[in-house]
Amino acid sequence: MLPQVAVGRHCCAQSTNLANYRPFVGDELIDEIVALADQLKGLRLCQVNATAAGGGVAELLARMIPIYRALDIDADWRLIFGDKEFFTITKGLHNALQGGDFHITSSIAAEYLAHNRQALEALDAHYDVFVVHDPQPAAIHHFAQPNPGKWIWRCHIDSSQPNAEVWQFLRPYVEAYDAIVFTMPQFCPTDLKRDNVVFISPAIDPLSTKNMELPDDMCRRVIADAGVNLREPILLQVSRFDPWKDPLGVIKAYNLVKQQRPGVQLVLIGAMAADDPEGWQILESINAQAVTDPDLYVFTNLMGVGNMEVNAFQRGVDVIIQKSLREGFGLVVSEALWKEKPIVAGAAGGIPMQFPEGYEQFLVSGAEQCAERLLYLLDHPDEAVQFGRAGREKVRREFLLPRLVRDELRLIQKVLAK
Amino acid sequence: MLPQVAVGRHCCAQSTNLANYRPFVGDELIDEIVALADQLKGLRLCQVNATAAGGGVAELLARMIPIYRALDIDADWRLIFGDKEFFTITKGLHNALQGGDFHITSSIAAEYLAHNRQALEALDAHYDVFVVHDPQPAAIHHFAQPNPGKWIWRCHIDSSQPNAEVWQFLRPYVEAYDAIVFTMPQFCPTDLKRDNVVFISPAIDPLSTKNMELPDDMCRRVIADAGVNLREPILLQVSRFDPWKDPLGVIKAYNLVKQQRPGVQLVLIGAMAADDPEGWQILESINAQAVTDPDLYVFTNLMGVGNMEVNAFQRGVDVIIQKSLREGFGLVVSEALWKEKPIVAGAAGGIPMQFPEGYEQFLVSGAEQCAERLLYLLDHPDEAVQFGRAGREKVRREFLLPRLVRDELRLIQKVLAK
Repeated sequence: MLPQVAVGRHCCAQSTNLANYRPFVGDELIDEIVALADQLKGLRLCQVNATAAGGGVAELLARMIPIYRALDIDADWRLIFGDKEFFTITKGLHNALQGGDFHITSSIAAEYLAHNRQALEALDAHYDVFVVHDPQPAAIHHFAQPNPGKWIWRCHIDSSQPNAEVWQFLRPYVEAYDAIVFTMPQFCPTDLKRDNVVFISPAIDPLSTKNMELPDDMCRRVIADAGVNLREPILLQVSRFDPWKDPLGVIKAYNLVKQQRPGVQLVLIGAMAADDPEGWQILESINAQAVTDPDLYVFTNLMGVGNMEVNAFQRGVDVIIQKSLREGFGLVVSEALWKEKPIVAGAAGGIPMQFPEGYEQFLVSGAEQCAERLLYLLDHPDEAVQFGRAGREKVRREFLLPRLVRDELRLIQKVLAK
Repeated sequence: MLPQVAVGRHCCAQSTNLANYRPFVGDELIDEIVALADQLKGLRLCQVNATAAGGGVAELLARMIPIYRALDIDADWRLIFGDKEFFTITKGLHNALQGGDFHITSSIAAEYLAHNRQALEALDAHYDVFVVHDPQPAAIHHFAQPNPGKWIWRCHIDSSQPNAEVWQFLRPYVEAYDAIVFTMPQFCPTDLKRDNVVFISPAIDPLSTKNMELPDDMCRRVIADAGVNLREPILLQVSRFDPWKDPLGVIKAYNLVKQQRPGVQLVLIGAMAADDPEGWQILESINAQAVTDPDLYVFTNLMGVGNMEVNAFQRGVDVIIQKSLREGFGLVVSEALWKEKPIVAGAAGGIPMQFPEGYEQFLVSGAEQCAERLLYLLDHPDEAVQFGRAGREKVRREFLLPRLVRDELRLIQKVLAK
C-alpha cells in the first residue's frame, strides 16, 4: 500500500471543531459546509501527493484531513514514493510547468510513468474520490482505469506559460481527470479545454500554531530572545532559501533602506529541506553576510525555529517582505495580512489576488522599488496600520480554511453528480 | 577565515541581560559572574565546533555567545568546515569515544589531520582563549603551536570506555591542551592524567523559547491543534530518531502501558538532520506504526514544530520519557524537570545526575520497567507532582545557564593565570 500519512484525528482538536471558525468566517459558510458534509457522509476520499512535510501542499493537507474526518468524511492522505531519480524528474516537470527548460527523453518519460504505475498498483484504490496534487503523481489516474471513483487533479503551480514539450507530455494524463483545479484562471494553460476546470485558491488556518493569536508581550520576548533589537525597525521575510523567493534581492533592498534608516534590521527565516543543495548554498552566502552585519539575522527550522516562532515574528515586526519573482499562491502573504501586517511583495503568482484593494503600490519588482516602499511604510505608520487592517479583512473574507473546505466539498459533490 | 556563526548580539535581548536570571538563580551567582567578567573584560574568546545548528553543543553556544558579548567579552563562534568524508570519519571518532568500533587506518588519520591543519590555517588565531568542542576539531591546537593563546578542549561525550585505538590516536592531541573539560568524572578515560581535567555539566536557558513560561491554555491549544486528545493521558519523548534514544523501545513501553490504560497516547517529537539517513529510516518505521495507531503521534521540525511547540508539549503532557541507551548529558531531561514534569528515563550518561534525590526508581532499563514506572506515575498523580517540583528545584540549583557561564569563566581565569 502507498504510505499513508498519520495526522491528528481526535475530534476534540481545536481546529477540527468547525464551530471554532464561526467567529472568523460567520455562520453562513460553516452551515453550508455542514450541509455539504451531511450529503457526503461516509465518503471515502483520498488525497495523494508526494511529500508529508515541507511546502504549502503538505501544510494544507495536514489542516484539511482532520476537518474532513471530523465531518464524518473518511479522508486519507497517501504519499507516492519515489527515489532520487524520480524526484529529480518531477522537480524538472514542476519547473517546466512554470516555464523552465526541460527535455523529456524517452527514458525520462518511461521512468515517470513506471513510478506512477507502481504508485497506482500500491494504492489501495477503493475510494470514492481521489484528489491528486501536482505533477508528481498526475499519471496515476491513467493507470487506474477502469476505476469507479472520481478523480480530481489539483495543480498548485502557475502553469500559465508552461514549457511546450512538458505540457504536451502531461496534458493527456491531466485532461482525462473528471475535474482539474488551478489556483486562479491565469494559472491555467491557454490550450487546456475548460469544461472540467475550476479555480480554487488555497487558504490559511487561523487556529493553527502558525496563525493563532499570541499575546504581544510573548511576541516581543520571542524576538528579543533571538537577539533582535525591539527599539529599531524590523523587516521580515519568511520563505525557503530559493532563488525564486529572491532572498538576495531582499538583502539588497534592506541595504538600500539602511542608507536612510541606519538602525533597520532584517530577519530572514527559512525552512531547510534535506534534498535542496541550492538552498544550503544560498543559506551559506546569506550567513557570510550576516556575520559582518549585526543587523541581519538568519534563522532556520534546524535551530528549532518553528511555526510558533514564525507566528511571533510575523506579529512583532514592523513590515513583512515577500519579494518572490515566481510564486504559486504564496500562503505567507495571507499569514502576514491576517496578522494585520503591512507587506511589500513581488507581483508574482497568487500574491496580487491576496492584496487588499488600494494597496497595489506595495506590489513591487526590483530591489530599488522594494526599498522605496519599505521606507514609505516605515515613514507612514498610520498608513501601515490601515494596510494591515484592510489585509486582515481581505483574508478573513477570502483566504481562511473553511472557504477552501467548502469549495473542495462543492467540487466533490459536482464530480459525483456527473 | 573559518566560517563564523552569526548570533544575536543586541544587549537588549532578554536572555543577554543577566539581571533577568536573578529571580531564578539568586544574586550571589549573578554577582560572581559580573565580577569574573569584569576581570576578563575585552578578552578575545573563540568557541570552535563543527555545526551551527542541531544538537546540544550548538544550542549551548547559541545561548552563551550573546551573554559573553553582553558581559564585554569579545566572544566569537567559529565552525570548522569539512566534506562528507571528514564528517564520516569524525562521526566514527565520536562513536568510538563512546566505545564503538572504529579502525583508524593511516589514510583516515591523514585525512583527519589534514582537515584540522586546514581549519587552523583558516582560523584567524588572534584570540586569548580557545574553547574547542568534541573530537572533530580536537587536533587544531596541535597545528596552532606556538600560539600565545590558551586552549581548552571541551568533550561532551561519555568517554569512560573509549575504543582503545581511537583513544590512543586522539590522546596526545587532547593532552596538550591547557585544560580538558568533561561533563562529569565518570566520562573521563581512566588513563588520562587528571591535572588539567575539570568537570562542568551543560545547562538549559530558562529564558529561551524552548523553556520560557507559557500560559497553560496556550499549551493546551498547541496540543489540541496537533490533534492530540487532552482528555486522555499523554506521554512524550522529544529526541532525534537515533537508535541510542531508543524510540522503538519507547513505543514498546507505550504499548505495554496501553494494555492497562487503553486511552493513553504517545507523542514523539524529533528533529531531522539532512545528513542522517538512519534517522529517516527510523522515522519511516515509526510513521508506519502511527498510521495504524490513532494514539501514536509523530512530529518533526520539517512540519514546523519548533522550540515553542516543544515547550508547550513538555508543559502540557502527563509524563515525559527519555529512554536513552547512551547519552551525553541529555539536556531534554533538565528541560522536562524545569517544567515540573515527572520523567521516566534511561540510566545513561548524564541523565542520573539530573534526577532529584529520591526519584531514582524512575531511571529504567528495558521497555517493561519503563512501562511499569509510567503506569505508576499515571496512577499516582500526587507523587508525579512532587517529582516534578523536586526536579525543578534540582535544575534551578544546578542546571541553569548562569551556573555554566560561571564555571566556564572560572576555568578561563584559571588557565589564563597559569
